[in-house]
Amino acid sequence: MPGKFIVVEGLEGAGKSSAIASIVSHLQAKSIPTETVREPGGTPLAEQLRVLVKQEWDEQLTASTELLLMYASRVQLVENVIKPALAQQAWVVGDRHDMSSRAYQGGGRELGDAMLTSLRDLVLGNFRPNLTLLLDIDPEIGLERARSRGALDRIEQEDLAFFERTRQRYLDIAASEPNIVVVDANQSFPAVQRDLLQAIEENLF
Amino acid sequence: MPGKFIVVEGLEGAGKSSAIASIVSHLQAKSIPTETVREPGGTPLAEQLRVLVKQEWDEQLTASTELLLMYASRVQLVENVIKPALAQQAWVVGDRHDMSSRAYQGGGRELGDAMLTSLRDLVLGNFRPNLTLLLDIDPEIGLERARSRGALDRIEQEDLAFFERTRQRYLDIAASEPNIVVVDANQSFPAVQRDLLQAIEENLF
Repeated sequence: MPGKFIVVEGLEGAGKSSAIASIVSHLQAKSIPTETVREPGGTPLAEQLRVLVKQEWDEQLTASTELLLMYASRVQLVENVIKPALAQQAWVVGDRHDMSSRAYQGGGRELGDAMLTSLRDLVLGNFRPNLTLLLDIDPEIGLERARSRGALDRIEQEDLAFFERTRQRYLDIAASEPNIVVVDANQSFPAVQRDLLQAIEENLF
Repeated sequence: MPGKFIVVEGLEGAGKSSAIASIVSHLQAKSIPTETVREPGGTPLAEQLRVLVKQEWDEQLTASTELLLMYASRVQLVENVIKPALAQQAWVVGDRHDMSSRAYQGGGRELGDAMLTSLRDLVLGNFRPNLTLLLDIDPEIGLERARSRGALDRIEQEDLAFFERTRQRYLDIAASEPNIVVVDANQSFPAVQRDLLQAIEENLF
């Protein structure tokens, strides 16, 4: 039996890293082999693309270009890391995946969800996470947390309206598709952690 | 009236650079402002993508990744260079464009033409060249010429069957779509040049 692919999604400052650490501990306590990945990045080429897409440019970096680079990184990670790990029975826990593109480039940059799902189907076929955990947070609170951690990258510097559109698209997708659980990340961390592990127990065991 | 976008296509060693020089001279003799571009590349980000897509990697670079990087480069060039030049009445002469992806990634790498035209429509909308000149050459002759110029890059090192599929896809597209003229590049250069300029006169004036 192949492993399972769990994705943690959410805005900057939603608490994805802490969530992933909790999930990995929970799985390891059950003696399940785990592997963590992040997007964009995770292979030599994908990490180079991560640098290119996050840095500032003197030229306009179009919304479509940003999307294509995210997908180029994603395909490398899926084919060269995630699928091989799943084939070896590991459970892969990912920091962002396709839902980020749908929320950020589709919602935030207003490319629209039809273009996003068409591109996903063209490039990824029917590869999908087994479970996506969406850490939902008020963008003002999330950005404040992200800012306190250091300098913001090109995408993180967008205005509040961009992140409100992104959050709304996240919630719209979660409301209409299976295998996505929304966790209220405005709660205390112990409460978030409880909700995350409960979602994993109910959906994957 | 906006300018016109002329694309020169063909396999390695087909003589694209010489063809472009002839076309530019011909247009300049008519006092038409011209701009030359090449793909992949042509903007700071696109040139970085050119390096990434042509270099050797220790990981597998999937056919889809190659395609997405070509498209990311293309969108930057179209939006930041080609469309602004056309808007200023320049005629843009391009060394490769979308037809290269359809031939190399669609034909050579066997991604299929339906995926290619879907991606094109998603990303470029209805932006198309006014005229494409396909320099058709026997792959063995073209590769021999390319080899004599120096080291071959990652894509140029594919086997002969790859380039035969690529050439066939070029010819299939040319046979079924408008605004593409096939020029026999196995001829002497003066004969190729005569055919190129005749195609431009007949189709664009």
